[in-house]
Amino acid sequence: MIAEIVAVGSEMLTPFRQDTNSLYLTEKLNEIGINVAFKTVVGDTRQHLISVARAALERSDLILFMGGLGPTEDDLTRESVAEALGVELRRNHDLVAAMYKRFAERRISMPQNNARQADILSGAEVIPNRRGTAPGQWLQRVHDGREQIVLLLPGPPHELQAMWEREVFPRLQQLAPPSAIATRVIKTAMLPESAADARTAPIYKKYPNIETTVLAGQGQVEFHLRATAADRMEAEELVQRLSDDLEDELGDAVFSTSGESLEEIVGLYLQMRGLKLAVAESCTGGLVAERITSVAGSSRYFLGGAVVYSNDLKTLFADVPPLMIEAQGAVSKEVALALAENIRDICNADIGLGITGIAGPGGGTEEKPVGLVYIAISNGQKHEVVERRFPGDRERVRRWASQQALDLVRRMMM
Amino acid sequence: MIAEIVAVGSEMLTPFRQDTNSLYLTEKLNEIGINVAFKTVVGDTRQHLISVARAALERSDLILFMGGLGPTEDDLTRESVAEALGVELRRNHDLVAAMYKRFAERRISMPQNNARQADILSGAEVIPNRRGTAPGQWLQRVHDGREQIVLLLPGPPHELQAMWEREVFPRLQQLAPPSAIATRVIKTAMLPESAADARTAPIYKKYPNIETTVLAGQGQVEFHLRATAADRMEAEELVQRLSDDLEDELGDAVFSTSGESLEEIVGLYLQMRGLKLAVAESCTGGLVAERITSVAGSSRYFLGGAVVYSNDLKTLFADVPPLMIEAQGAVSKEVALALAENIRDICNADIGLGITGIAGPGGGTEEKPVGLVYIAISNGQKHEVVERRFPGDRERVRRWASQQALDLVRRMMM
Repeated sequence: MIAEIVAVGSEMLTPFRQDTNSLYLTEKLNEIGINVAFKTVVGDTRQHLISVARAALERSDLILFMGGLGPTEDDLTRESVAEALGVELRRNHDLVAAMYKRFAERRISMPQNNARQADILSGAEVIPNRRGTAPGQWLQRVHDGREQIVLLLPGPPHELQAMWEREVFPRLQQLAPPSAIATRVIKTAMLPESAADARTAPIYKKYPNIETTVLAGQGQVEFHLRATAADRMEAEELVQRLSDDLEDELGDAVFSTSGESLEEIVGLYLQMRGLKLAVAESCTGGLVAERITSVAGSSRYFLGGAVVYSNDLKTLFADVPPLMIEAQGAVSKEVALALAENIRDICNADIGLGITGIAGPGGGTEEKPVGLVYIAISNGQKHEVVERRFPGDRERVRRWASQQALDLVRRMMM
Repeated sequence: MIAEIVAVGSEMLTPFRQDTNSLYLTEKLNEIGINVAFKTVVGDTRQHLISVARAALERSDLILFMGGLGPTEDDLTRESVAEALGVELRRNHDLVAAMYKRFAERRISMPQNNARQADILSGAEVIPNRRGTAPGQWLQRVHDGREQIVLLLPGPPHELQAMWEREVFPRLQQLAPPSAIATRVIKTAMLPESAADARTAPIYKKYPNIETTVLAGQGQVEFHLRATAADRMEAEELVQRLSDDLEDELGDAVFSTSGESLEEIVGLYLQMRGLKLAVAESCTGGLVAERITSVAGSSRYFLGGAVVYSNDLKTLFADVPPLMIEAQGAVSKEVALALAENIRDICNADIGLGITGIAGPGGGTEEKPVGLVYIAISNGQKHEVVERRFPGDRERVRRWASQQALDLVRRMMM
């Protein structure tokens, strides 16, 4: 089944905004074994919309239009799809009456143009919209001897998603061919991208029926696996086999196979072991604390800490001796370790983290270049300091450093 | 001129990855007065690529294909566009020789399939790629009595952008119709979205030739203005007039008209006035510090502070009396103010910020529901505490709170 997603809206043709609904729809379609072959974005221009609809009707079996179903003059999806299909629009008077009623209940008189939302493609079924006024539409027809489904869906994500779950998914599931897609995401921390690829390519190439996408960010390489098979069980088995092989190869660099983020995994480990964490951050400026506390319930294992951006604060909050800063420099192994050990002690935590470095773009020297970061961890018995030179701009260096810090916490508990 | 962007690559048809190159290209095309009418994403499938190319050639004057120019079997853009255009591919032997030479210099033997990258659409010009091996292609033809330009560009952003700046932009600029687009972004803080729209719609509707897109996030409403005119000066004047009118209406809610973020503006103000800031954060867990320190050079005005997630740390680092926490609760006006005043004092800063609240999803009560946040500021002479109930999930509540905190700093310096 060839599926196509058409996002309607001029704002998505500016440099400021993107169609993100299609990511949601793609995920949902994949779940029932449907791959997306085309995605199109088109503005609120009748002629352009008709052209896009015609091309889609020619090449695809399932076409999902999103957006352009509202009451204003800019909302042209209904008219344009009708024109491309060569069918009439018919106003559904029950829907109009329901709209009038809803407005009357709120004691507002309904603007005339609202009734346009009740214009239905001849032959289409109305799909109720519980989160808004514009209903969806479902048209099934035989075209060139093939079954074709045309869907009009609302653009606002909460309307679209509610309509999908309640109305579209159950209908589509019955119609979709009996195949299933199983997915798995393997996330690794602090593994160089090139090494990750060199070590894993020979493995995933042995499974030509599983699509493998490798995504790499700052200190994180993810393997997104996607197997298609006749039924869910078979697809799951297939993807599990590759996932196991990859995990064997990558060993303890793997931190998650069920979608969790590194901060969630660190939180789970801390909670399981009943340990409390405190952090003292210089160059990351609060990013590590922010990532940890982005997880709900983090107060159970995170005490807090200090953002010791100035040297005075390194001494004030984390007891780093001014003489040490003077002798070794604020960006040094010694200061990182003092930050970790002292913040642990002062906060009465089980594990302490200390981070100091040069995020750039300024502040680098030949000896201590931009990207140089020291990250230390201590649990009272043992401690570790790592020196890293992270590539990229300020944002990337900080992101890398926070990733390395979280990974040290994870590894200390393994 | 009708422009269309076609992004080629199966990975952009998964739920994990999006075409982001088109945002860059859109911005660059807008600069020379070209609007984008269609964006399409298609996978590495010959038949689908041909279908997309045919539709684009039928409706657009300028078509930019991105990606699928590499050496592997999956790279099918050349063949497919040739087929849709009805022209031959011809191997450019100078390019092949140059590839051999480059490989020889690195003492690697060149894989045979690399030569595919030298297959050029008959009639097309080769566009040099200084950052990679796959050259771009520029084909100009007359089709149905209209001038048509077909461009093949590489997918990796650094190759694409370098090729655009050096090679494509200069050629396109000469050909583009003599019109120009001027843009302006007006950013406001802590203005309710509905109020912002109600107050500004009557103004921007008076300028039907300026496209206005309103983007709203947590505590930030942005107006993106875009005027098209015969020349740059005229477009600039037009957009400036609307910008001035909007600024008059929105008053001091406007914090930037040149693209700066709120944290950059706060930094500029602090630096101009020679003031130092310190923060004590509970529910935002480091987000405010993280935002402030994301700006390069922030060490000139930001000292640091404390992430006082546990009650003990509120006392330890910000001297909040345990009795106050017990009597008023950790989420209270009193504690917020104590955090702000004490962190200022302890860090020897000019301005102190204190934040405490319930980010959720747990921890709410009837009296103190999820989303309740107190944010306090003090400069030693005057202080202010605001109580807010922010909507949305944990991430949104935290984002709103950080925005409110930064805006209090901005307003204190106005």
